[in-house]
Amino acid sequence: MSVQLEKTSSNKVFEGELAKYRFKSTALGGLFANFNLFIPPNASETIKVPVLVYLSGLTCTEDNGAQKGSFLGPASAQGIAILFPDTSPRGAAIEGEDDNWDFGTGAGFYINATDPKYSKHYNMYTHVTLELPEIIEAAGLPIDWQRQSIFGHSMGGHGALTLYLSSTTKQYRSASAFAPICNPTKCPWGEKAFSGYLQGGIEEAKGKYDATDLISAYKEPDSLQPQGTGDNFYKQGQLLPENFLKASRDAGYDEFQVRVRSQEAYDHSYYFISTFAADHIHFHANFLKA
Amino acid sequence: MSVQLEKTSSNKVFEGELAKYRFKSTALGGLFANFNLFIPPNASETIKVPVLVYLSGLTCTEDNGAQKGSFLGPASAQGIAILFPDTSPRGAAIEGEDDNWDFGTGAGFYINATDPKYSKHYNMYTHVTLELPEIIEAAGLPIDWQRQSIFGHSMGGHGALTLYLSSTTKQYRSASAFAPICNPTKCPWGEKAFSGYLQGGIEEAKGKYDATDLISAYKEPDSLQPQGTGDNFYKQGQLLPENFLKASRDAGYDEFQVRVRSQEAYDHSYYFISTFAADHIHFHANFLKA
Repeated sequence: MSVQLEKTSSNKVFEGELAKYRFKSTALGGLFANFNLFIPPNASETIKVPVLVYLSGLTCTEDNGAQKGSFLGPASAQGIAILFPDTSPRGAAIEGEDDNWDFGTGAGFYINATDPKYSKHYNMYTHVTLELPEIIEAAGLPIDWQRQSIFGHSMGGHGALTLYLSSTTKQYRSASAFAPICNPTKCPWGEKAFSGYLQGGIEEAKGKYDATDLISAYKEPDSLQPQGTGDNFYKQGQLLPENFLKASRDAGYDEFQVRVRSQEAYDHSYYFISTFAADHIHFHANFLKA
Repeated sequence: MSVQLEKTSSNKVFEGELAKYRFKSTALGGLFANFNLFIPPNASETIKVPVLVYLSGLTCTEDNGAQKGSFLGPASAQGIAILFPDTSPRGAAIEGEDDNWDFGTGAGFYINATDPKYSKHYNMYTHVTLELPEIIEAAGLPIDWQRQSIFGHSMGGHGALTLYLSSTTKQYRSASAFAPICNPTKCPWGEKAFSGYLQGGIEEAKGKYDATDLISAYKEPDSLQPQGTGDNFYKQGQLLPENFLKASRDAGYDEFQVRVRSQEAYDHSYYFISTFAADHIHFHANFLKA
């Protein structure tokens, strides 16, 4: 595979580098895709570092987590790289794609679409799990993909949990999520997304793209997820952490394997995320550096 | 003075609160002004906390520092409030006000305009030094204005240094700046701003709104300012830290009183700022908590 990876910007940060790249994505049907990659200062030509994948939420791009997450300081100190993918293909020119903030552009839901209208471009699952590691590896960047974990926020928290739980090869050592959509087949956001992207609709998503379904079939999970009680989307029933928690306990996982934390009065914003950013980096460091 | 202070949003962050307020500003000629105020968790009705004022750079609003600065975690831990003013009046409807990103809206330069075209609205000096402390105090928020320091970035770094150095009452205990405009009467940004806002033009700004002029007349400064060597605006001669440093040493101030640090390869972005955010909070904590 020969893919032209173009570095479009570079910023020194916490003694490491945050670089933005652009390439023509096969998984996304030939569209250009952007991602940010933070490389900590201890990485070098001979020293590869573990990597944490951060999946962002609805309406976001590859920039939100990098700019507002407060992840880079703790990651630099721990010697962990962070990959920030985009949240959907851009410019697919599908009719209606830009009509809603919670479907289409900015709302890829980290699935592979099967509806013919979307299946050429909306394959964020393959983009994140397969394509990005491959092209970054091919470019010779100092990442050790054998030491990979994943985290995310809201729709990206759904992505982190489902990519982690659905991997048959234990691609990710650990998963964590800020206010994730835990049971998308039972909330309006998920119902809308799956009905649109999947030929089989919501039924097709069950057991495949729903963390609450997946958790009962998984072996030995390590996950962490805080949920703010002041989060309006939580109050509206979009996130449903209680369903995920019940399914986890029913499946026999204890609080050391699946930790769902209630954070009094915190909301759905990056102010919430930044508050717990260092906790999450340290959680993953336990697995990535083991 | 009876001013209606309206809280338009509130986010819990690092156990404290980041709230946005809006009020009709007399200093800005009756326009509505916004600011953000972070109150750390140790503040209460009976416990007032010291405050750090953060002045943002060209094109910014009251949000950039709050969202991207990484200041709130260290400030929470130190028990210090942070006030984030806007960078200019908004909606003054002066002809040409929105034609340039480095003059007019988003570019108030923290001065009081004397040119009749701007003097009704462009009074960010009075807004920051006098009006905001007064209305926040009147609202009963738990800030101890006797313990006040100031910092900023780029144009806001210019603001922090000049407000600090020009105060005849030692309003601020300490000042720091990220890549400040150090000698604005001798760089294109400052020349443009002073020519537009001040009836007497650049001459009027000398000794009043120029840190390099002011430092020689000041007694016992405490300031800290890092400058990235990879900063394009530094390379273009907009910032001129070497002029400020020379004037400081000529005035007899040593490296403990005025610290200008060169930071290899860092640029002008919030990635640079976030890297040194905790350093600055800790620097000011030495004075605010003394």
